[in-house]
Amino acid sequence: MNGLDELTQRIKKFNKDRNWEQFHSPVNLSKSIAIEAAELLECFQWNDTDYNLNEVKDELADVLNYCLQMCDVLGVDPIEIVNDKMDVTEKKYPVAKAKGVATKYNKL
Amino acid sequence: MNGLDELTQRIKKFNKDRNWEQFHSPVNLSKSIAIEAAELLECFQWNDTDYNLNEVKDELADVLNYCLQMCDVLGVDPIEIVNDKMDVTEKKYPVAKAKGVATKYNKL
Amino acid sequence: MNGLDELTQRIKKFNKDRNWEQFHSPVNLSKSIAIEAAELLECFQWNDTDYNLNEVKDELADVLNYCLQMCDVLGVDPIEIVNDKMDVTEKKYPVAKAKGVATKYNKL
Amino acid sequence: MNGLDELTQRIKKFNKDRNWEQFHSPVNLSKSIAIEAAELLECFQWNDTDYNLNEVKDELADVLNYCLQMCDVLGVDPIEIVNDKMDVTEKKYPVAKAKGVATKYNKL
Repeated sequence: MNGLDELTQRIKKFNKDRNWEQFHSPVNLSKSIAIEAAELLECFQWNDTDYNLNEVKDELADVLNYCLQMCDVLGVDPIEIVNDKMDVTEKKYPVAKAKGVATKYNKL
Repeated sequence: MNGLDELTQRIKKFNKDRNWEQFHSPVNLSKSIAIEAAELLECFQWNDTDYNLNEVKDELADVLNYCLQMCDVLGVDPIEIVNDKMDVTEKKYPVAKAKGVATKYNKL
Repeated sequence: MNGLDELTQRIKKFNKDRNWEQFHSPVNLSKSIAIEAAELLECFQWNDTDYNLNEVKDELADVLNYCLQMCDVLGVDPIEIVNDKMDVTEKKYPVAKAKGVATKYNKL
Repeated sequence: MNGLDELTQRIKKFNKDRNWEQFHSPVNLSKSIAIEAAELLECFQWNDTDYNLNEVKDELADVLNYCLQMCDVLGVDPIEIVNDKMDVTEKKYPVAKAKGVATKYNKL
């Protein structure tokens, strides 16, 4: 078992022990990811570079945690869905066109 | 090399080929995570249960992708920071108090 | 009738004509505000200062629009709730302590 | 002077007294709107209907407050930009097509 599977199992057990699975519908997990993403952003609210690394790690961990829960609830593999999306993104942003510019694909 | 490391390497190469590392400061990645989290939420904007699974997978993959990039830029291990945060959360929400209630720890 | 009341009436008529009131529960409006706020943030995703003012105005208008709808659904007055919150915030951040520092009140 | 102008003046004075205008760039206000929108969403994180109205009003007020600040910093009128956007939206969603369906205009 690799680290990612073990981690998912640990999170599942945590929720099961607390009888919290009832709250973890896809929509509620989606709200939770957005809420934690904003808490991460709050680390950079007034200053872009002078952030507290421990707070950033904590909030980033919360986003990741809910993402892993959502993968589990949907029955999808986190590594696989990111790889699948990369297949698409690599085609949408060909190196020749995208090099050095942060332009959205539909404006390239 | 496990799947997570390989995936991170793939994303790094994708960015390097396009000379996009210049855009990927922690604050910009944090904005990106929040933006993608909201696109995920949009899959559930008007209906909680009748969602398009492919769209959900795509948007969830984008959130995960930026989270992995942020871990890489900060030099932290995604598995480790989630496990570290779980250590804290398990203490904050003791089973006896938290069982079956979605109350925030500061109101438990 | 002032401009704000007229605007709220216009938005209400727009929704009524389309039979959209059924979708505008407080939770759905809250999701919508977060989604539009992220679209506004997207105007600044990779560059803080070189933004498109027309896009910014459009997205900011969407956030405001859903906020006005939420006030209407909750039966509260937008001017009044902001003034009420200002009463609290002015006390939380006394000038003597808060001057020139972006520190959150609980760390002041 | 109507209630909206007075409110904007009050917020401007609040910031000026604390020398906080320096923090309120468009990008920082945009981050702040997203952060407050997520705090509003947190009122509905695990339950759609059993929310605390006072908390909802407080968080909605924070979103509105930062929106008004952003309008002021950009030199635009909040009522005007929402009306301008409504002109566009009314055309994008004709009653005949949009009635009773929450479908995005590009899929109508």
